[in-house]
Amino acid sequence: MKKAAVSGSASGIGACVRKRLENQGYEVFGIDIRDAEIIADLSTGEGRQTAIEELLKKTDGEIDVLVLAAGLGGHLEDGQLVAKVNYYGAVTLLDGVKDALAKKKGRVVVISSNSAQMHMDPNNDLAMAMLDGSEEEAMSVIGNNHAALTYGVSKHALARAVRRRAATWGQAGIRLNAIAPGMTETPMFRGAADHPEIGKSVDAIPIPQNRYADPDEIAGVIEFMLSEAAAYMQGSIVYVDGGTDAQLRPDAF
Amino acid sequence: MKKAAVSGSASGIGACVRKRLENQGYEVFGIDIRDAEIIADLSTGEGRQTAIEELLKKTDGEIDVLVLAAGLGGHLEDGQLVAKVNYYGAVTLLDGVKDALAKKKGRVVVISSNSAQMHMDPNNDLAMAMLDGSEEEAMSVIGNNHAALTYGVSKHALARAVRRRAATWGQAGIRLNAIAPGMTETPMFRGAADHPEIGKSVDAIPIPQNRYADPDEIAGVIEFMLSEAAAYMQGSIVYVDGGTDAQLRPDAF
Repeated sequence: MKKAAVSGSASGIGACVRKRLENQGYEVFGIDIRDAEIIADLSTGEGRQTAIEELLKKTDGEIDVLVLAAGLGGHLEDGQLVAKVNYYGAVTLLDGVKDALAKKKGRVVVISSNSAQMHMDPNNDLAMAMLDGSEEEAMSVIGNNHAALTYGVSKHALARAVRRRAATWGQAGIRLNAIAPGMTETPMFRGAADHPEIGKSVDAIPIPQNRYADPDEIAGVIEFMLSEAAAYMQGSIVYVDGGTDAQLRPDAF
Repeated sequence: MKKAAVSGSASGIGACVRKRLENQGYEVFGIDIRDAEIIADLSTGEGRQTAIEELLKKTDGEIDVLVLAAGLGGHLEDGQLVAKVNYYGAVTLLDGVKDALAKKKGRVVVISSNSAQMHMDPNNDLAMAMLDGSEEEAMSVIGNNHAALTYGVSKHALARAVRRRAATWGQAGIRLNAIAPGMTETPMFRGAADHPEIGKSVDAIPIPQNRYADPDEIAGVIEFMLSEAAAYMQGSIVYVDGGTDAQLRPDAF
């Protein structure tokens, strides 16, 4: 039986991906802070190690598909917590199971966000600390900042972490890509949209298609990206956001 | 019967897209310089107008799907000719049938290229002339330059033309996206790869997956982008290039 791992499997896009993979016949190992085969807190180094060890044990060190969907929203007070889960939780898990993926010519989709390039200076201190420094340095850059200031940067750095690995991982036979969804009707998004202050910034983001995404339609694109039909996609950041990114930066891509 | 138009339908990726759309039950109107329902030379203003007029006539002004695949390779001597077909042929046709697409909430995929960002200064004179100036100005920037110097820029400007239109077209109900394929085993690519001098530059481009794409696998991604499953994709430039772009610019996306 083919084996898939999905972080953030208990809700939102991760839960939809999980269902789709089960329908395809995969044995799915969910990783989440609750309601999952592997219970782990991806905000801590210990929790990440638990997730990696349990996953490698349960899969006998062979993983066909990995989807990294665990993430916290920009409406939370604790900017450090959001960066820890969204960036370090994802990248540590990714690197920790590379060999298990290589054994099966595995396919990976990482969930970034269309906020990854919103008003983003690619050389900002936090992104550079995440990409080239240590977790400790990144946390000291964040200090007491609200997650509204770290959510987009963590998704930006995560997309670049995927880009930076794409060539060597591709040579190792692993297909590694990321998706950048726009506003998607998940519990995480709802938390931000309903927040008395953050909600205003959410409302201010233009969506040419004038609707939010359904989480399962984002999962459908992820399913395609994992399929043989997308075999030549490598290191791509696929925007699925109703046109927001194109409206905000029409001359960049 | 649903109606689709495909430029460059006589060969390469366009021919594969055509077949896939026919298999889906579309009535397909091919546009090409030979072997097509609509014979037109997209390098000239007259040819473009012929293509638009004949297409609107044959479809009764209602188009469900448009795929712009017509393109000439960077191995040709005539840099102006390549820019005329790759950029002006595509953009003029696109704008010329906007209303016919809007009537059917149409879906469009434009074929750009992963060379669109290779060693590219986004403010280069030719790109700016194409995007903000006139065809005449662009031709005077090109002068006698070889197509090797205009191919990538024409595909870069084409991707930005898609990005610039995505918001307003999305508001009009049209789904407009582009694909950026890497090296794909088409007659156009073969012409470049086998060229005594251009072939050397082609060989120098790294491909992490270490293979060329099959034209039908690129057509498969286009088919997905045209499908309901990709309904929330708007203004996206989807790279399908075996990892080349990620290797060449790991920190940008």
